[in-house]
This record gives sequence, structure tokens and C-alpha cells, in this order.
Amino acid sequence: MRPQPAQYARSSKDDPPDSPTSVGWTEAQRVQLASAEAPFALESGASIAPVVVEYETYGRLSPARDNAVLIVHALSGDAHVAGWDRHARQTGRLYRLKHPGWWDAVVGPSKPIDTNRYFVVCSNFLGSCYGTTGPADIDPATGKPWGLRFPIVTVGDWVRLQARLLDHLSIERVRAVVGGSLGGQQALEWALAFPDRVERAIVLAASPRLSAQGLAFNAVGRHAIMNDPNFNGGDYYASGRSPDVGLAVARMMAHITYLSEEGMHRRFGRRRRPGTDSGFHPEFEIESYLNYQGQTFVERFDANSYLYITRAMDYYDAAARWGGGDLVEACRRITSRVMVVSFSSDWLYPPAHCREFALAMCRAGKTVTYVNVPSAYGHDSFLVETDAVGRLISAFLR
Amino acid sequence: MRPQPAQYARSSKDDPPDSPTSVGWTEAQRVQLASAEAPFALESGASIAPVVVEYETYGRLSPARDNAVLIVHALSGDAHVAGWDRHARQTGRLYRLKHPGWWDAVVGPSKPIDTNRYFVVCSNFLGSCYGTTGPADIDPATGKPWGLRFPIVTVGDWVRLQARLLDHLSIERVRAVVGGSLGGQQALEWALAFPDRVERAIVLAASPRLSAQGLAFNAVGRHAIMNDPNFNGGDYYASGRSPDVGLAVARMMAHITYLSEEGMHRRFGRRRRPGTDSGFHPEFEIESYLNYQGQTFVERFDANSYLYITRAMDYYDAAARWGGGDLVEACRRITSRVMVVSFSSDWLYPPAHCREFALAMCRAGKTVTYVNVPSAYGHDSFLVETDAVGRLISAFLR
Repeated sequence: MRPQPAQYARSSKDDPPDSPTSVGWTEAQRVQLASAEAPFALESGASIAPVVVEYETYGRLSPARDNAVLIVHALSGDAHVAGWDRHARQTGRLYRLKHPGWWDAVVGPSKPIDTNRYFVVCSNFLGSCYGTTGPADIDPATGKPWGLRFPIVTVGDWVRLQARLLDHLSIERVRAVVGGSLGGQQALEWALAFPDRVERAIVLAASPRLSAQGLAFNAVGRHAIMNDPNFNGGDYYASGRSPDVGLAVARMMAHITYLSEEGMHRRFGRRRRPGTDSGFHPEFEIESYLNYQGQTFVERFDANSYLYITRAMDYYDAAARWGGGDLVEACRRITSRVMVVSFSSDWLYPPAHCREFALAMCRAGKTVTYVNVPSAYGHDSFLVETDAVGRLISAFLR
Repeated sequence: MRPQPAQYARSSKDDPPDSPTSVGWTEAQRVQLASAEAPFALESGASIAPVVVEYETYGRLSPARDNAVLIVHALSGDAHVAGWDRHARQTGRLYRLKHPGWWDAVVGPSKPIDTNRYFVVCSNFLGSCYGTTGPADIDPATGKPWGLRFPIVTVGDWVRLQARLLDHLSIERVRAVVGGSLGGQQALEWALAFPDRVERAIVLAASPRLSAQGLAFNAVGRHAIMNDPNFNGGDYYASGRSPDVGLAVARMMAHITYLSEEGMHRRFGRRRRPGTDSGFHPEFEIESYLNYQGQTFVERFDANSYLYITRAMDYYDAAARWGGGDLVEACRRITSRVMVVSFSSDWLYPPAHCREFALAMCRAGKTVTYVNVPSAYGHDSFLVETDAVGRLISAFLR
């Protein structure tokens, strides 16, 4: 029997599919955007083919094709932002439950990103394990899963592939790009790489680069995965044994960085589970909760994808990419209206680092809206504080 | 070849053994403090025998036996506080280098804990792997290493065993008990459990209990160790394969909590090691540094000890033990003069939590000195900021 997770507050409203404010039943779409004849060139110098992209859309594209909002997901997210998956699906080895999407409280009819008004697009990024080509897919050169032969991908690559998806949908310019965490870095990269295609960029819980401490946590997570005896250099798909211990440890540790000390204190404190003796089994509620987070993650995520995605997160550095190391210089490229939202207890992308970006925008003479939302939910706030985030987004979109 | 650690600042002065301010060459002593006939009773209700305690002393005990200072070590520390080990020793499977002790900058002739004046005692605590009985030692009942059959030990047990060592040395009352981190919690426990035996207690970088976030990091570390395939339920000593991957991951992660975001930014930032390509090998300096920390730790520490010690750290709760959950009530027991020192960037035992203890002392009508030392070295500050710490200690001892 799977242990029950400790109770903790979520703002998810579990909007049922037949609710007037739900986008209802959804169905992911897939499109091939690169082929052996026309592979997708990556920043590393490598190229990759085929590239299939999974995406979802909600709402209707206006005749002028000018009402699109692009949502970009974070590390373990997918294209299923809102509503209910029509099909419980088998994607590679990974089973996904149908449940309301990861930002259902924000996206839907009459919700902050109002699908009566906007045509919402979200695609799964390259290297992930949720439908877009990733290391678990077959490398046509070998007929076997890519594993670590999959090329290194970057935030810049993701954004260019999203641009190609918009081309496919004949959308030249979007009303907004919106994302949190690693999604927020993609939103920022959109404003830098394609200033003409982005009217507004909304960057939540993200700064222009990860701190040394953030690099450190990612490094330890990858170390746990790559040194798991089942990792086998990334070629574990056929063995029936995957590096679950390493992946669970990586997730448990990362999960701590998504919460805050204060939030953990409020939710779990030092409370013990009833009926547990002293020893090394999960005795404190926080232990049980983290175990559950680790266990459920290995059921839904691919370890190789975790490596590629955290590396992309490590590498991203907006100032280095676009300003020769000078963030103000980089910001001069931006023509979109930008909103930056940080969360007071976020210590993965701390408010001070988000504010630095907002200040750089000011120094570059650009319009920027910066809000620091008081919250105890830490980095996860962008997913949990949907009321506050929703109000900010709907006001900024108007 | 072992990778070189990235350079980083340490305040260690590497005082050579022939320096007039060094305690010189040292030799650990061992004493049996419990036997099959008179086992050591533990708080869990279990008892253990035999118990051998390893300890070091520096300076001379005064004829009145009233100049002792007891130093208590932290998680991965040992009895070798100062000077140079006379013998490179093989302790169980663990090789220890002879080097200046872990607090050599603070302890020695004319140093803040002045061995011309004080008789300094430090013992390795029960369950560790540095000479005092621990899970790697032989359980006389089976003739095999204890492993996880070793009983659960607590901070209270450690302090009572230290008291027994003082009895053995015919020291009724100490001038001071001094410790940092888990050592600070022992210093606090000394003041609570044996108020009559402690003139002064110096509690550095420690609060009366670990936060939920601290519990969380310990839990993930233990999860990594106990789910390492080489762990074998704790019985890995004879196999020649120990849970090194899990222990290294636990240490790497914990090491992040010993530093601070600011300190890591200053020391490592996002600097890359020269000549490294993109990929998953350690490319950023911080990655290389953490790998080195993990590797060297598995060479010097026992995974089972790590489990027992972190669990003792989890369980300690001064208010629950001595005040029915009320810290002020607990503090009423204290008759020692107490100094609490926190470090501004310590987020494992944050200043706010240390200050809470100092405030509880005030509310209990007790004398307390509280200092928050500005430092970027995080939790490690008590080991690194030896100038500031030394000045505070020598002033408080006078």
C-alpha cells in the first residue's frame, strides 16, 4: 500500500471538467517540427531529428490571429496546463493520470488567463518525458533510446522550438508569454530572443540566472541519479531497472527547495506520525511527506530528462547570452512590456535576484512591473498562490 | 587521481605542532565506561555494553580540579580538537589523517580557550566512528558489527556519558561547556541536565531544536544511505561494499546547508572549471567542490554512524525534554551563565531560532549573553570565523 501523503494546503480548486470555468476535456496534440532532412539545430552545435512536439491549446484563435497567450512550463511540468486529459495515456514508460492541469486555477473561461478571450498554447519542451522528443525516445541512428546520446538542450533551444510551433500555428506575435520558475526563464528568453513576437512577458518566480546554491542542489540531484547502480550510463530503459533511488533522492531534495522554512514549519513542524516508534523509518510527518514526493515522482518522470532539464536550468544566464555579462545591456533588447513577480519566501529564485532583473530593466529605460508577493509557500508559490498570481496576471494582460 | 578541491577560504592557521601556541603532538585516550555487568542505560529504555569512550585532553588539571573546559563536537567531528595526532590511525575501516584538530585556532596555549589556564577535555560521542563505541564496533551478543542493531542514542545520552567521563577524571564541575551546531545542543543539554556541574555554557550556531526544514534535509540524507543497494540493512561491513553513493549524496546535500547562498556566490559563483565542455561532468566549480566533499567524506565516515547521529539531531528538543514544551519553563532549570552565538547567514540553525532561546532565558529571569556574528560563512561560521568566535569565548570565560 502506498503511504498517504501528509495533508497540506493546495489552492487547486479541482474544477470539474463540466464546470463553466473549466476548459473541459482536453486532448494533447503532436506535431513533427524537425525531420532527418531538416533537423533542429541546437545551440551546442549539434542538431536533432526527428523532433515531435506535444502541445495543448484552449480557447479560439481570433481571425486576426492576435489573441494567443503562450504558457511555458517548469522542470517537471507538461503541456497539460488546464482541464482534464481525455485519455489516460502511456507516454514512453510513463503513465500520466488525468487530473486538472497544473495551472487550472489560472487558465479557463473567466479565469485570469481567460480562454473566452485568449487562445492559450502550451508545449512540452525538448528533452522532457511528456510527449515532446526526449532521451527516452528512439534515436533513429541506433534504433535504441537516446539516453545520454541525446544532445544537450538549452532554454534558448526550447524557446526557438516554441517559436517554430507558433510558426506552425501561423501565430506571428503573442499577446503574452507567461511562465514560472524555469518557465519564467523561458518567458524572459522569449522577450530577449524574439522581442518583436512578444507583446507582454510575465516572469514568475524566476531570475535571469540560477545562483551558485541553485547550481549546487542541481549538481547533487544529478550525482544521485548518475551514481545509482541502475543508471547504467543512461541506458536503463531496456533493463527493467531504472535509477529510481537516485531520482527519488533528487526530487526529495529539490522539493525542499520548492518550499520554505516557514511554510514547512506551518504545515509539518516537528509533528510525528501517530503510532511510530523511534528508529529510522519515517517518523516525522515531513519525512513521510518527502518519501511520498519521491515515490510518486519516479512513477511519473524519467531520470535522463531530469538530467537534461536541470542542466538547461544551470546553463541559463540571460546577461551572459544577450549582454556580454551585463544585464542592463541585455535588457536594452527588450521591447515587450514585462511583469516580474517574486515570492517573499522563495529561496530558489529569491526576491532579491528577481528585483535585480526589474532594476536592470529600469536602468535600460524599459517599462517593467515588479511585484513581490508575500507568501509562505516558497518557490512553489507561483503554483499555489493562484489568487494573488491570477489577479496580477489578469490586470497586467488588460 | 583525486580531483583537487576548488580553492576556498579557511581560517585554519595550520599551527605547526612545534609552535608555542599549539598543544603540540596529541594522543587520544580510551576508557571503558560501561561493561556487561554495568551497561550504560539509554533514554530509549535500551542499554548498551561495552562502552569505550575516546577522548583527548590538553593542558593541566589544577590541584583543585576546577579548571576544566569541556568541548563537545558536532556531527562529523571527533575528540581531536587541537594539535597534531601522534599516530595516523586505523579506526575500524576509517583512516584518519593527522592534521591540526578541528578547532586548533581556538584551543591552545594563549589561544581563546587557553590551555595554559584550562584543562580541556573533548570526547567522541556514542554512535560515532572515531573511537567511541558505535555501529561499526562488535556487538558482543553476535560477534558481528552492531549495524542497525545498535540502539538509538540521543543528545541526552551523549551528555550523560560525558558526565561519566568527567566522573572518571574526578572533575565534579567544569568551568565551561562549549560546542557548535550539534555540539551547541549538547552544551545546552549540559546546562539543563547538570546545572550544578556547569559554570558557563557556550552555545554556538545551535538552537534548542532543529526546524522542520532541518529534519527534511536529514531525512533525505538517510533515505539516500538506506536505499543505497550496498546498504544491506546496515550490515555492509563484511561485504567490502559500503553505501558510499548514498553517504556521499547525503554529505554533499548537507554541505550545502553548512554554507550560505552569499558565501557560495562569493567563493564559487557560476564560475566554470577551465577546459570543461558542456555535459554532465562537474563543470561549474561548485559541482567539483561538492563532489570532492562527498568523496572525502566516504573515506572518513561510517554511513551507519551518519544515520544515528542525524537521528539524535532530529530528536533533540530542549523545551519538550525539560519544559513540557515550554522553553521558558525549561530555562528555569539553568543556573550556568550562558552565551548564545548565532551567525547571520546560518540557515540550518538560523539566528532567529537562537535568539528565541536567548529570549526564553531572559523571560526565565536568567543571565544570558547573545551575539549574532555577521558572517557569510553560514552554519560553518563557528568553525571558520575563529577570530570573532575566539574573542567572544575568551571574553566570556574571563
